[in-house]
Amino acid sequence: MSGILSTPTADRSTAVRITESALALDGVARLTELRTWFAERRAHDVTTVEPVPLDALERWHTDPDTGNLVHESGGFFRIEGLSAEVRGAAVPAWTQPIITQREVGVLGILAKEFDGVLHFLMQAKNEPGNFDGVELSPTVQATRSNYTKVHGGSAVPYIDYFLDTARNRVIADVLQSEQGAWFHQKRNRNIIVETDEDVTVRDGFAWFTLGQIHRLLADDAVVNMDSRTVLSCLPFSGAGLAAAFPIFGDDFHSALLHSCSDDSGSLHSTGSILSWITDTRSRHDVRARTIPLRDVDRWIRSGGTISHESGLFFTVMGVSVRAGHREVASWCQPLVAPIGIGVNAFLVKRVDGVLHALVHARVQPGYLDVTELGPTVQATPGNYAWLPPEARPRFLDEVLAATPDTIRFDSLLSEEGGRFHHARNRYLVIETAPDHAPDPGPDFRWLTLHQLVGLLRHSHYVNVEARTLTACLHSLTGTTS
Amino acid sequence: MSGILSTPTADRSTAVRITESALALDGVARLTELRTWFAERRAHDVTTVEPVPLDALERWHTDPDTGNLVHESGGFFRIEGLSAEVRGAAVPAWTQPIITQREVGVLGILAKEFDGVLHFLMQAKNEPGNFDGVELSPTVQATRSNYTKVHGGSAVPYIDYFLDTARNRVIADVLQSEQGAWFHQKRNRNIIVETDEDVTVRDGFAWFTLGQIHRLLADDAVVNMDSRTVLSCLPFSGAGLAAAFPIFGDDFHSALLHSCSDDSGSLHSTGSILSWITDTRSRHDVRARTIPLRDVDRWIRSGGTISHESGLFFTVMGVSVRAGHREVASWCQPLVAPIGIGVNAFLVKRVDGVLHALVHARVQPGYLDVTELGPTVQATPGNYAWLPPEARPRFLDEVLAATPDTIRFDSLLSEEGGRFHHARNRYLVIETAPDHAPDPGPDFRWLTLHQLVGLLRHSHYVNVEARTLTACLHSLTGTTS
Repeated sequence: MSGILSTPTADRSTAVRITESALALDGVARLTELRTWFAERRAHDVTTVEPVPLDALERWHTDPDTGNLVHESGGFFRIEGLSAEVRGAAVPAWTQPIITQREVGVLGILAKEFDGVLHFLMQAKNEPGNFDGVELSPTVQATRSNYTKVHGGSAVPYIDYFLDTARNRVIADVLQSEQGAWFHQKRNRNIIVETDEDVTVRDGFAWFTLGQIHRLLADDAVVNMDSRTVLSCLPFSGAGLAAAFPIFGDDFHSALLHSCSDDSGSLHSTGSILSWITDTRSRHDVRARTIPLRDVDRWIRSGGTISHESGLFFTVMGVSVRAGHREVASWCQPLVAPIGIGVNAFLVKRVDGVLHALVHARVQPGYLDVTELGPTVQATPGNYAWLPPEARPRFLDEVLAATPDTIRFDSLLSEEGGRFHHARNRYLVIETAPDHAPDPGPDFRWLTLHQLVGLLRHSHYVNVEARTLTACLHSLTGTTS
Repeated sequence: MSGILSTPTADRSTAVRITESALALDGVARLTELRTWFAERRAHDVTTVEPVPLDALERWHTDPDTGNLVHESGGFFRIEGLSAEVRGAAVPAWTQPIITQREVGVLGILAKEFDGVLHFLMQAKNEPGNFDGVELSPTVQATRSNYTKVHGGSAVPYIDYFLDTARNRVIADVLQSEQGAWFHQKRNRNIIVETDEDVTVRDGFAWFTLGQIHRLLADDAVVNMDSRTVLSCLPFSGAGLAAAFPIFGDDFHSALLHSCSDDSGSLHSTGSILSWITDTRSRHDVRARTIPLRDVDRWIRSGGTISHESGLFFTVMGVSVRAGHREVASWCQPLVAPIGIGVNAFLVKRVDGVLHALVHARVQPGYLDVTELGPTVQATPGNYAWLPPEARPRFLDEVLAATPDTIRFDSLLSEEGGRFHHARNRYLVIETAPDHAPDPGPDFRWLTLHQLVGLLRHSHYVNVEARTLTACLHSLTGTTS
């Protein structure tokens, strides 16, 4: 056969290049220089965010028929109501406010080789709901309203790389869901494009190796959710990956690299994992539909916010934003403000020298396809005060009691600051014994990292919380302790 | 590593076993014996089907608020209305009746080796909408209402193999969509389970090799839609598959086997195909929601049926069924009766010795995820009399004008007789020149068979019409002309 057909070897070499970038702590800039650059961007940011009652949000109104919160353009996003029924669950039916956003946004990272090492163009960017101001964001994070300018503003830098991919090389490109508890069927296009062209680095942007981004991921509230989900979609897995790299450090590190390698074994074949996912989607009976916001029960609109009668879960609030470096210099919008800090944790264990993570097939009302694979534990402990005892998540107490010597990753990271106010979760990777939970029940399975990465080539499989943890696990490939 | 981890080699050996079964024209029974058995089942079937006005359907009623047609159990299926908007399409908005069915049914085939050759347990079964009576069906085709006995009746034979898969080996297990023009978000579990247990063959069932089923697939209206969709999900693809088999016959046959082999090249890498699918789902803006049946426009309920004012598309009718060999001996139900015979065709071509099929990313209002890959042409030619000229499908005229020497497959096959009345499509595989349509536009791509089979491990990618054509292409692996 001649050269006009492409062959599977291309994928393998991408995996090796990604791993090389993950091992590079210095690139076109040194890690210390990038830390200084980031600290200065954060220090000099001039964004101000003030709470505003929902009734007083400029350009937003409450639809008289439905009570929904709607932007005057009709685009952007809305706060509507959701009615959910999950047959057989501890809480079998409820209503709640939910964010709806029909259009698909772009979360794009531009990549380019410098001196043979892949770099990623990242942006230091503030969002109104961020806990600590500027965070490290993808090259582009834009709704269709942003880049088609529905709500006014200047052009989105670098967007053309992601709207017209033909002239460059696509490394990953997949629609992924976001928080199934707060969004109804929201999806963004997670896309990584590699270019050979000269790229002008604009103010607020910088080139990072993957290893450099990984170092910042260990810090609290630096690498934002959008960056984490895009990075999790990197094809960071290939046959022979473990063999191609020096395995230094302890056994955990070796087991991690073997877990990234397609030719390592796994407790369950990929076929049996797919069958298990099909089974969870056939077994769980979920009905979720949007309803008028005024029809949600047990939620109270007063004092310019919407809150649950228990004071738990989340509040819908309004903010007024004044920003220096954005497409639009000032605007108002609603935000969802969760009550309390969540815990998202993977239990991991070494099986015959290959690291496996315990995933949970979760039912959340916002998913398009019944279940998605989430962390072993994904919970805000405070919420369970209000819920029946049988709703308490499995493995939560074990995660909360983990001893420091078993904790492989631990950061307090924030969720999408464009929709959520001070939404933070503690992300943990906790190593357990090889014989832990060998038969963890019908909604849990032990997966290798290369199996997670294989599923991440497709929509509907891995939820946004587990995607962050996948990126966190990848970040440990470059460390020795 | 020890033996507790499974490795990728298992998948490869399944592909070889499947191909061996495809090449076997004789199994526990000879092909001629099975043809005789099938002809006798068809000849002696005693099912009668009589038209009944929709208003007179026993156990069905018209909901007074919505006009929807509903079964008294609340289960089974419904006829509701659908409102669809497809921005930028030739017909950008319309309403129509649609079948809704929330529960996931099981389409299951039981497999077992005899003398080292995989066999599949098939059923000779009638459905009320079948054109020619009994067809060859999967081991099990059952809605949840069937096997939980919502509408009465006896137990579904062999169902336990598919509800509890742990004791046997799962070969394929995936939720797949059905007709996006007639169903709203309908999905069935397509599942193939291999057993080593002794299996009692009940009356109306028989063991077939894959090659034997393939021979019957060439006959009009013998292998039913449910069998075809399940068979298309066989992992009929593996590295080295072409090398493992004698390549006999003409170049077309060799190109077909290479197309099944993972290690053959392809015009587009799998990554770029996934990116293209993501692009079609981001680009097309589709909104489809169920509405009350009484709110559909241009559809007229009179004379006991519901029809479009043009007399085109389809009619909703009622039937009374009296059957000898079913769980329920007699019942009434609505059926959707399409007007005219459709054409579903793949254009295929050899590129560097590897067969590629031209797939079309189709928008249909019943899909859960915007687009699915369909045949090159999927159309009922008569419908276009009523539609604007720009709605006429690309490649339709080319398919209708194909000369006999280019036609590799041609059968008139029926669609699901449990929901459709005399719904028949002509399924065609037409070979074109290697330089045909090199750049067929943003909604078409040339794919190899192993790429289609790879996508078929997942939901939401390949529509039911293209799945039948995939099974038809597989059926040509055992032929020499």
